[in-house]
This record gives sequence, structure tokens and C-alpha cells, in this order.
Amino acid sequence: MIGHGFMGAAHSVGWRQAPRMFDLARDVEMAVLVGRSPEPTAQAAAKWGWTESAVDWREVVARDDIDVVDVVTPGFSHAEIAIAALEAGKHVLCEKPLANTVEEAVGMAAAAERAAERGVLAMVGFTYRRVPAVTLLRDLIAEGRVGRINQIRAAYRQDWLVDPESPLTWRLQKDLAGSGALGDIGAHIIDLTQFVTGQQVEAVSGTVETIVTSRPILGERSGLGGTVTAERGEVSVDDVAVFTGRLSGGALVSFEATRFATGRKNGLSIEVSGERGALRFDLEDLNTLRFYDRSAPDEVQGFTRILVTEPTHPYLSAWWPAGHMLGYEHAFTHQVVDLVAAIDAGTAPHPTFDEGLQVQQVLAAVETSSANGSTWTSVVPEPARL
Amino acid sequence: MIGHGFMGAAHSVGWRQAPRMFDLARDVEMAVLVGRSPEPTAQAAAKWGWTESAVDWREVVARDDIDVVDVVTPGFSHAEIAIAALEAGKHVLCEKPLANTVEEAVGMAAAAERAAERGVLAMVGFTYRRVPAVTLLRDLIAEGRVGRINQIRAAYRQDWLVDPESPLTWRLQKDLAGSGALGDIGAHIIDLTQFVTGQQVEAVSGTVETIVTSRPILGERSGLGGTVTAERGEVSVDDVAVFTGRLSGGALVSFEATRFATGRKNGLSIEVSGERGALRFDLEDLNTLRFYDRSAPDEVQGFTRILVTEPTHPYLSAWWPAGHMLGYEHAFTHQVVDLVAAIDAGTAPHPTFDEGLQVQQVLAAVETSSANGSTWTSVVPEPARL
Amino acid sequence: MIGHGFMGAAHSVGWRQAPRMFDLARDVEMAVLVGRSPEPTAQAAAKWGWTESAVDWREVVARDDIDVVDVVTPGFSHAEIAIAALEAGKHVLCEKPLANTVEEAVGMAAAAERAAERGVLAMVGFTYRRVPAVTLLRDLIAEGRVGRINQIRAAYRQDWLVDPESPLTWRLQKDLAGSGALGDIGAHIIDLTQFVTGQQVEAVSGTVETIVTSRPILGERSGLGGTVTAERGEVSVDDVAVFTGRLSGGALVSFEATRFATGRKNGLSIEVSGERGALRFDLEDLNTLRFYDRSAPDEVQGFTRILVTEPTHPYLSAWWPAGHMLGYEHAFTHQVVDLVAAIDAGTAPHPTFDEGLQVQQVLAAVETSSANGSTWTSVVPEPARL
Amino acid sequence: MIGHGFMGAAHSVGWRQAPRMFDLARDVEMAVLVGRSPEPTAQAAAKWGWTESAVDWREVVARDDIDVVDVVTPGFSHAEIAIAALEAGKHVLCEKPLANTVEEAVGMAAAAERAAERGVLAMVGFTYRRVPAVTLLRDLIAEGRVGRINQIRAAYRQDWLVDPESPLTWRLQKDLAGSGALGDIGAHIIDLTQFVTGQQVEAVSGTVETIVTSRPILGERSGLGGTVTAERGEVSVDDVAVFTGRLSGGALVSFEATRFATGRKNGLSIEVSGERGALRFDLEDLNTLRFYDRSAPDEVQGFTRILVTEPTHPYLSAWWPAGHMLGYEHAFTHQVVDLVAAIDAGTAPHPTFDEGLQVQQVLAAVETSSANGSTWTSVVPEPARL
Repeated sequence: MIGHGFMGAAHSVGWRQAPRMFDLARDVEMAVLVGRSPEPTAQAAAKWGWTESAVDWREVVARDDIDVVDVVTPGFSHAEIAIAALEAGKHVLCEKPLANTVEEAVGMAAAAERAAERGVLAMVGFTYRRVPAVTLLRDLIAEGRVGRINQIRAAYRQDWLVDPESPLTWRLQKDLAGSGALGDIGAHIIDLTQFVTGQQVEAVSGTVETIVTSRPILGERSGLGGTVTAERGEVSVDDVAVFTGRLSGGALVSFEATRFATGRKNGLSIEVSGERGALRFDLEDLNTLRFYDRSAPDEVQGFTRILVTEPTHPYLSAWWPAGHMLGYEHAFTHQVVDLVAAIDAGTAPHPTFDEGLQVQQVLAAVETSSANGSTWTSVVPEPARL
Repeated sequence: MIGHGFMGAAHSVGWRQAPRMFDLARDVEMAVLVGRSPEPTAQAAAKWGWTESAVDWREVVARDDIDVVDVVTPGFSHAEIAIAALEAGKHVLCEKPLANTVEEAVGMAAAAERAAERGVLAMVGFTYRRVPAVTLLRDLIAEGRVGRINQIRAAYRQDWLVDPESPLTWRLQKDLAGSGALGDIGAHIIDLTQFVTGQQVEAVSGTVETIVTSRPILGERSGLGGTVTAERGEVSVDDVAVFTGRLSGGALVSFEATRFATGRKNGLSIEVSGERGALRFDLEDLNTLRFYDRSAPDEVQGFTRILVTEPTHPYLSAWWPAGHMLGYEHAFTHQVVDLVAAIDAGTAPHPTFDEGLQVQQVLAAVETSSANGSTWTSVVPEPARL
Repeated sequence: MIGHGFMGAAHSVGWRQAPRMFDLARDVEMAVLVGRSPEPTAQAAAKWGWTESAVDWREVVARDDIDVVDVVTPGFSHAEIAIAALEAGKHVLCEKPLANTVEEAVGMAAAAERAAERGVLAMVGFTYRRVPAVTLLRDLIAEGRVGRINQIRAAYRQDWLVDPESPLTWRLQKDLAGSGALGDIGAHIIDLTQFVTGQQVEAVSGTVETIVTSRPILGERSGLGGTVTAERGEVSVDDVAVFTGRLSGGALVSFEATRFATGRKNGLSIEVSGERGALRFDLEDLNTLRFYDRSAPDEVQGFTRILVTEPTHPYLSAWWPAGHMLGYEHAFTHQVVDLVAAIDAGTAPHPTFDEGLQVQQVLAAVETSSANGSTWTSVVPEPARL
Repeated sequence: MIGHGFMGAAHSVGWRQAPRMFDLARDVEMAVLVGRSPEPTAQAAAKWGWTESAVDWREVVARDDIDVVDVVTPGFSHAEIAIAALEAGKHVLCEKPLANTVEEAVGMAAAAERAAERGVLAMVGFTYRRVPAVTLLRDLIAEGRVGRINQIRAAYRQDWLVDPESPLTWRLQKDLAGSGALGDIGAHIIDLTQFVTGQQVEAVSGTVETIVTSRPILGERSGLGGTVTAERGEVSVDDVAVFTGRLSGGALVSFEATRFATGRKNGLSIEVSGERGALRFDLEDLNTLRFYDRSAPDEVQGFTRILVTEPTHPYLSAWWPAGHMLGYEHAFTHQVVDLVAAIDAGTAPHPTFDEGLQVQQVLAAVETSSANGSTWTSVVPEPARL
């Protein structure tokens, strides 16, 4: 695994727990953790249970005893590492967003395509697909429980930037982070919408904006924030993105990605309104799904709060009895389970790099639309891919 | 109408709105409002739309142009007024609890029985039966949607006595109020439980207690409280009653009536657990009912939040389009609607005085049980009634 | 009162209840109900408690014994009636939206301005301003409890058109209704946003669309729907409007008005995210307001569910003790209370016709934006008004 | 670790995750898993990551290289194993309830006392104490945020026995399980109440009962249920226990433990009503705590929904950023963290065996009360302990 920040911890839980809670077709060994500085990397490896640590990812990627490379570095380095790993014949799990630019993503998707011909697989870490309630939501749509989809609302609301004096971290700098709320959390709701509907966002009209344009330079980092210094610097990414999308099936989708929704901590939510019913999910109520069934008798229609903890629900039979909650990191375990199953079966794990690229194209279209007075903009597939 | 406190206002809305929103078989005229002091009574009459006011209820009850007497005075005077009115041939609507003692209630039930032989009808004001979500709850049970009932929880939680320095009003004095939380709000949950199940509480085990035993003497009254004086007096009624009941069908019922549930303002709630499903209602969420249907497909089982505002729901076709909320006093309008329909049809309006008496007997059994170390105590029907 | 549909019933409750529950400075007499056909109008008048009925609104508007004209007809007739009434020296309460077009609204605002010089007042019926929780939300913003506003979400979601075979009523025809979801319910969320913030929407980018473009011709009307015939006709108004607005204070507002949100019956909601806190309201939970206070101690921060039924809350001291719910039509009573107070004081009641015109201008800008690829469009004040 | 059922899996996660997510003062090695049959035990050991497996717990308990013995067998074997382990000088973590009878528990507490003199520690697995929202609830009470406690409601509601044809598992047989809902889940709410208040239940009045008295004999086990055979057997434990307790501080507590609460899957809930505020927790909403603060300004009082995921909340700084949910098994990790810290510090880890014994005494008093017509019964400390 390359990288050892917040995502490194979460992915480590996934690799650690998957073989302990599920019956996997392959053994999992947590071999090498790679980081830039030897000491913190060695400490993280020891704590999280990786056998070795290393500082040169190129060497590690070249090793014969490594089968899978898990990339959890910041977005700007994804392309280089993932492509090298695929070319070295390693299966790759790459944290989202696939890359910081469409160009990089195109290169990665091409590398994945070439690798696939040699049986080498690539997967993007849109982990929320594997929250059981989300998977169930997708399944119910696929079964036709909501019928034709008329409208969708998808939002990802956080509030960790509300304080105008919180520091200027790397996530607020375009050269490092690519974009702000749009790429970081907007990517999730685009992927989720496409995942649950099986449709693609084909055009967008949107507005991205930076509410607090300068912030104190970061002193010492801690969590997503840290201490501040007396100097100020420019915030070069967006704080908020609101956009409307058109799905291939015709439905309008209202998107909102924001770090300024006071009181909303990790508020990813989606609501799908269909001709026969509706489904709602909110990540702050992770173990539940709400379903409105228009075919129920009139006098008892309403949103049903399904506690998604039954053994018949996705991934649940491996966990606890009904009514026992799962948490945030369980989806990382499910991601490993699905990846290992795909490797064993030799089939493409979803989301593929092509799917990751397509999300990148939607993000780019939102920025283009915003720069053009929010006018409707097509999500054009890159010619290089045709 | 005799009395013009809080209940006087609520009943006045009922009489005023019923003929305006529903198609009644009889015309309603708001004739005379009766109170102890001429001036405040006249003012209330003018404000609430009663044609006349009066101070002598005996005279009014004797008048030929009066058909219905609505008794909304404190409990200790119910028996005298209601019996006189019934004997004068007036239909009577008597606010709950029917009386302060079982003895009085027995007399009233007997009077109602005699009156019924002459076609004169009597009804007790357990108004919450007419909240549409409650009526729907009863209907769904009657249709067998929850199957055999295994357990019930019924609570009425308020918090207006939490402050130990709030004044000693008449509601805290046994000679005036009869009892405290038990008779005032406990009576409601007993009636509600019996109403929705169609069964009777046959035995109880309970504890009633006074948490704050002395309070400042009341200065000037205002709302349910008022200003305080420097003197203190003894609280002679209960603050809290917790009891378990046995229904005629066998189910255990957990009851709680309290004025010390901090943060709960008017928290009447009931949950019925049955073999085929469950139903829940909470008065602080007045327009909704929750229904769990064990016969639904496994993967979508859960509590459905039914918004009880559809035209197919009880009483709703006379009001607004779906999704438009009703409030507290609408149940008083429905009470008038049902009373007028019963008068027109010449059939007994429910709850009858017999039902009111039976609630009184349950209350008495709770007090007896509490006085005897909470031992199980039968709700013995009064011999006088047999 | 001119008109006797759904709004006629609601306004009648307002006129009937206001003097009975509040202490008004003026007496209220429900004089004449005006409709197109003599018989149904007479029936409605009798039922709702209007002394007389009439079919010629011009005659009624000219009568000396009439002080206030309440216009609850469909939007296309508002301008003619309201202007005539104002010119006849009658105070006017006009149901929203002010008119079907900006042009008509301009004329009405001009008439209101002329009337005001003669002490004749005009008010638009954006009734939701008077839901106590909404008024409290506004008050808390005005007190600075949420600080600088960063973002707002305002939605009005209904689902009564989800069935593609529901009939083509007048509300779906442009010549009669002016617009669809946008004008009918979108107008409410625009007004509400401006009301609670004290700011104006200055520019918009939006998309309006018709999901079901043809429907069966209506047979017999019933409620908002009715029976259908075998023929089909074109739906000429929008089903859904999603738009983003820019407030004068700088904040972005996400708006959604839809009749296709399956399972949402009357889901008006608003969430205001500010630098110091946040406030949320949902009409399907009419008696509550949620408040997030960033100045609370860290470990107990969260959204507080305020039950807006305390005597200290707006309008509440005239109603019931704490915890007793109000319903939909109470806001109509509050509207009458405020109108009568304004008439008595001789001051302009809000929302004024100017405010109604401004909402109309926002609606027009949304349609213009939608027609121009959703590009940002200024809400230009009509030159005629300058 | 002795035992490898459901609790074996959960405790294994605790031992596996604690050193990976927290900084522990001692290293943790998962040495030996002990079960009755060699093969399934070996399989469980391999899957869960225990180095060895064994079938003779006595041998294992005697080994020099073992420091801690974790007992997760059914209740009837707790006493024998735990006492032997303590006498062999091993620290013991024993799953709740401490034992099936007060007698056994007395012996265990005595053994723990003797062991403590030699620095050997003993802890009972009332794991829910370590759910962060519960720990926070306790902390807020300790800080005086709710003031004097007036009343408590504590319930544990499940529904896995609602179907009268579900099989007769060992949990429904008195000789194996000790008691039914009372001992299994009632024990949790007794412990929780005492934990959060720092007070003891001193007397009880209660009713325990068996709703379905005979069930089909179990065929093949699966989860908490299994397949059924044609024969039926007697259910010898309770299905439901409702009881009232008196805390040492004077407050009344309403308890309910049931396996017949249709629709409630793992519904442990507690509500503490105090003079200055109230606190509520529900395990089906595991990451939140509700707090009502009577000292807040009147107009914004209400229950605040605290998302207990902030770094300042108990245990949270070791996990994810704010807004990222924890699940059921995280409390088992926290339990290991606290046990290891206690071992390192040489101080008694809570809950001690004395605390476990006291819960057992309350359970026994409930059964005594129930057998005596629900009369109030003191929780007499066992003379043997004095």
C-alpha cells in the first residue's frame, strides 16, 4: 500500500478485517507500507500491521512477491503510481478521485485497458458503493421497485471550513488537490448516482465558488485542520459546488457538494424519485434506507425506515445479528472482499478506471459550465478514448 | 357549555368548526356559556362566539331551548352537573376524567343508563380517540394488521412540574383535582389503550409518587402555572405514576404518566406489538403513524412513517389536501361531529359514561396497588353497577 | 371574499378563528362570499359562515359596507379584481402568486402604491411566513444567531403528478395557471427565503421542465385531481423547476420546486447555513424548528429540535399550552391577525404587493434562464416601476 | 479466549483492532482459542487470527505464556472457568451476565477479590458502557448537566421471538441460559442505568412472563434461530420482563426487556430526566446522543441531537474525522483498550466482578418480586459478601 494518511488507516482496516470476517477465495497478506519518510512510515506499518515499510514505491511495485498495489496517496500522484503498478503486472486499487485531471485519468484508463488484456485488474475506491444500505438501494432500483426515475437529489454536505480562520491546508490548494469540494466529495455523489441508477450523467449546468478566499497559512497539521500562522494565503479551490445533471435515462439530478453546510458533518445523501416509488439514504444514518412504495395500500403508504442489518441484506451475513450496526470503515472491508473475489474470478472489479475517468469528465464539465455562466455543458467523452 | 378554562376554549373551537368543515345532520347553535363570575364569563362568551352567558348552570340546564350540555368544569363538579343535565333530558358531553372518584362515576353511569332509556345520550371527552392517526391505528388493529397483541407501551410525558419552585396550583391539590398525573394524563393512556385494542385493563400493578412534596403557594395564575408567594404548601397528588396492566386479551401493558419527563411537553405515545406487526403513535408528531408489517418482504421491512393526511384517512376528507397538517384542536371538532351524528342517529356515542367509569376503576386500582407495595390488583367492577 | 375553492376554505377559517382566539383591535364580520355560480356560492357561504353570497364581484367591491376584499380566485383574475378593489378604497388581501405575469403584477403594485397614499392597504397571501416556526426562524436570523449566511437550500416537494395518468386539470394549463410547480410552489420558497433573510434574490440560473407532456383530459374534478376521459391533452406548464439563486448578501441558494417527488406530500423545507449556526424547517414537521449553534460547547453541539409551541414563540400565547400542536390553517388565522393589526395601525402589512411583484420577477428570470441554457440571469426590476 | 460463538467473533475484533487503532501500553498477542470440538475451533482460530487452538481450557489456563483469559462461553460455565483462571494468576475478562445464579456470582466475586490482592484483575463484559455516546451520557451526568435525577426509562427491545413457530434454542432453556430476556438483555439495562448514574438499584417491583410457552424443537442451528422439527418442547425462560426499580438516589426507573417488541431489532434505549436537563440514547441510532438543556434560552430549548463523532468525544480521537460512524463492535475494541490500560496501571477495570454480582442480585430480586405478585422487593446484598 502506497500512502499512509487517513485513507491509509481506513484501507488498512479493510485489508485486516476482510479475511477475518468473510470467507475469501485468496489469502491476504499485508506486505509493505510505502511512505516518503522512513520513520513515520515504519511506525504506521508497525501499528497497522504491515510486515515491512519502504520509501521507494518504484522498488516495491517491481517486487515479485507483491500482487496488489493499493494507492492511497493524494490525487496528483495517482496516475504515475497506478500506471507503473499496472505495467508491472500488479492489480491496482486506487483511491478516488482517479486523478486530478481528465488527462491523467485518460492515461490511467488506457493503462488499465492494456493491463486487462494481460489479466491485470484495476479498481477505483468509490467506497460508499459498498455501504450495505447503498448497495441495497441499487438492488431495489435494479429490481424495478421505484420504476422509471423522474428526479434525483444527491448532496454531500460537510462543515469543516465554516470557520474563516481555519488554516490553508493542502486540500485548499489547486496544484495539490486538483479541486475543492467538487472533486473531493462531489465525485462521490456523481459516482453514487451513476452506480445506483446504472445511468450516466450526460450534461451539467453548475456553479462552483469559493466562499472564503484567503485563509491563515497552516502551522502544524492535525486531522483535517491544524494550527495557524500570522500570514494568509489564497484559497485556490472551490468551497461549494451546486450543479444540475441530466442522466442518460432523462432524469434531472440536483447535486450539491459543500464544506460550508453548518452542522452537517459527513452528510452524504441521495433521494431517488420514481414512478412507482422512492428511495432515500443518508450517510449520517448509515445503517438505514428509506423506501416509499406507491404500490402499498393507500392508507399505509409512507417512507419505510429499513434497518439494513438483516442477514438477507448485502454483506450482512458475515457480520452480526440483526439490529447490530456497522460503521464507516466496514465499506472498506467490503471493497477488499469484492476486489479479492474479482481477482480470483479474473473479472473486472467495479468501479473500473473507465468509470473513474467518466466521473472525472463530469467534474470537468461542471467547471466548464461554471466558467461559462452555468450554461448546460455536455460531458464529452475524451476523443483519446474513442 | 359549563366552564370556560383551557378546555372551554378547545371545546368552543370544536363547536365552531364542526358545522363549517363537515356536513352535519343537525344545525349547531352555540347558545349559552356558563361560568361562576358574570364578567369573565360574558367576556369569554363574546370572544368565543356564544350567544349568551350565564352564572347559574341549573337554570341553563333547565331551559327548553338547550339540547346539549357540554361540561368542561374541574372534575369535582362533573357528577352533579352531568346528572342534573341528563335528568333534565339534555344530551351531555362531559370532559374527562368522568369524575374524581369511582363513586361519583358510578352515579353518573347510572344516570346515563336511565337517560339512555329516554333517548338522552352521554359521552365522555377522551378527545385523543379522534386524532386521525389514533383512529387509523385502531382501525388497522381491528383489521388484524398486527395480529394477536403481545405487548403494549403507553406513556404520557410532560415536564411542567420539573422546576421544584413552580407554584402549588389547584391541579396539585387532591380535594380539587382528585389525583395528579395519574388521573389527569394517565386516564388518557388507559382509555387510548382500551380504545385501540377493544380490550379492557383487568388488573394492574403500579407505583404512584410525589417527587416534590411541597411547593410555594400560588400567587396569580397564568396558564398551567403562575406567580409564587413566599409561603409553601403540601402537594397532595402524585407527580408520577408507573404501572403495568393486564389486558383482557392477555397482553401486558407498560404505562407511565408523568409531569417530570424533562423536555417532553405533551408526549403521549403508544406502541402496540403484535404477532403480525406493530403500530406506534406519538402526539408530538400528531399527523403521523408508524406501522411495521411483518408480512412485507424481508429486505424492505421496517417502520413505515404514514403521514395521516390522505383523504382516505379518518376525518381527513373534510380538511385539506394530502400533506397539510392538522393540529391539537381538530380532535375537538371531530368529537362534535361524532356526537352530533350519534344524536341524529339516536345511538350511543363513544366513549360512553360506562367506559369513563371503567377508566376510573382502573385508576382506583392503580392507587390501591401502589398503597399495597405495588402488588397486582384486580380492576373490580363496582357491585353497584351489577 | 372573492373565490371559494381550497383557498376559500382556508381563508374562511382564518377570518372565523382570528377574532375568537386573538384580541383584535377591530371587529371582523364575514360579509359576502362571491363566486361565479349562484348556487354553489350560496352553499359555500352558508357552510363557511358568510352572511351573504353574490356572483358579481364588481358590485360587491363597490359596496359601502365592505372594508376588506380577500381575493382567492385563480391567478389570472387577481390583477383585475385587486386593482378594482383598491381603487374602490377597499383594503385587499390577495392570494399568492400575486399574478400570472410580471406585467399584471407591475400594474397591481402601482395600484397598491396609489391606494397607500389614500390609506388603503394591500397584502399578498404568502401565508407560510406566519407558521410560527418560520417566524421564529426569521427572528433568530435577525438576532444574528446564525451569523453571516453562506448557503441556503429551499425546496417545495409534492408528488401529486407522479402518476402519468392523472388528469389534465386547470393547474397544468399555462393560460389559466401561468406556470406549474415554479409559480405555484416555487413562489413560496422564493418568498420564504427572502423573508427569513431580509435579502433579495438578484440573479438565477435554472431549469424548468415538463416530465409528463400529455395527460388524459379531466372528467369530473375532485380535490386536486379528478376522473379522466379517453382523450389526452398537452401539459403546457412545468412539472419541476430546479434553480440556483444569488442573494443580495452574496449567498448561493439552491431551489427546487417539484410535483414529482414521490412520497413527499407537502414538503416545503429550508435550511440556512451561516457562519455561527444553522437553522432548518420542514413543513411536514410543522411545529418544529432545528437550530445548530456553533457557539455551544463542542461536546454538546448538534441540531436542537425546538418544539415551537411555547407561549414565548410567535403567535403561540393565543393558543394552547406548550406541546399542543398547531396545524396548516393556523397560519391563515395569523395572517388575518396581522392584516387587521396593520389596518388598525395604518401601516403597510407585509408581504406588500411590491414584494409580490419582486417574487414574480424572480419567477420570470428563472424561465428566461431556463430558455437560455440555464445561464445566469439578473432579476431586473421592471423599468416601469422606477 | 474460551468460546467461539457470536461473542467470540466480537471479542476477536476487539483484540485485533485495539492495538491497530489505539496506542496501547502493552503488546497484544492473540494466542489460543479454546473450544469443545477440535475442528471447528481450529477453523475459527485460523479465520479470526488466533495463533493456536485447543480443546482443554484447563491446560490453556495453566500455561505460563498466557496473561489474560477472555471467557465468552454460555453463562453456566463462567464461574468454573473464570475462578480457575483467576486462581492461575490470569487476568480475566468475562462476558456478561457474570453467571447464571447469584450463588455462582458470589463465588466469582470472592475469587476476584482474592486475585486482586495478588494484582490479578477481573472485568465483566458489559460492553455497551464503551459505546462513545453512552460514555458521553455518563460524563454529562457526572458533570451535573441534568442535575438531580428524577426519573429514568431503560428498555431493551428485540423481536426475534415474535414468530411462535421459531425454534426452541438453548437460550430458551433455563438450565442452560439461566433466564430469558431478563438475564440476557435486562442485565444490560440494569448495568447501564447504574453506570451512567453512579447509583444502585436498591429495590424492584416486576413481572416476568413467557408469552409463547412451547415451541418446536430445534433442528439445525443458524444465527440466533435455526430449522425446526415436528416435536415441541417447553419454553422454560421468560420472554418479557417489565419492572420498576428504585435507585439509591431516589429516582424511579422503568425497565423493560423483551424479545417480543415487533420491529425493534436491537433497541436498547435509555432516557434520564433530571432537574436541569435530560439525556436520551438509542442503540439503533448508535452514534448519537440527545440532550435537553433547561438552562438554554427558552425560545431555543429542545433536544439536541449530538453526533458523537467529534475528536473531543470519548474514544473518538483514535478513529475517523467528525461525521464518520462507528459500529457495534467498536465497543469491544474500547473494552480491550480499557482493560489493557488497567492491567498496565494495575488498577481495577470496571465493571468489576462485584458490579457484575450486584446486577445478578437485581435480576434475582426481579424474579422474586414477580413470583410474589410483583410486590416491591429489596436487592439484598448476599450475606456471604459481607
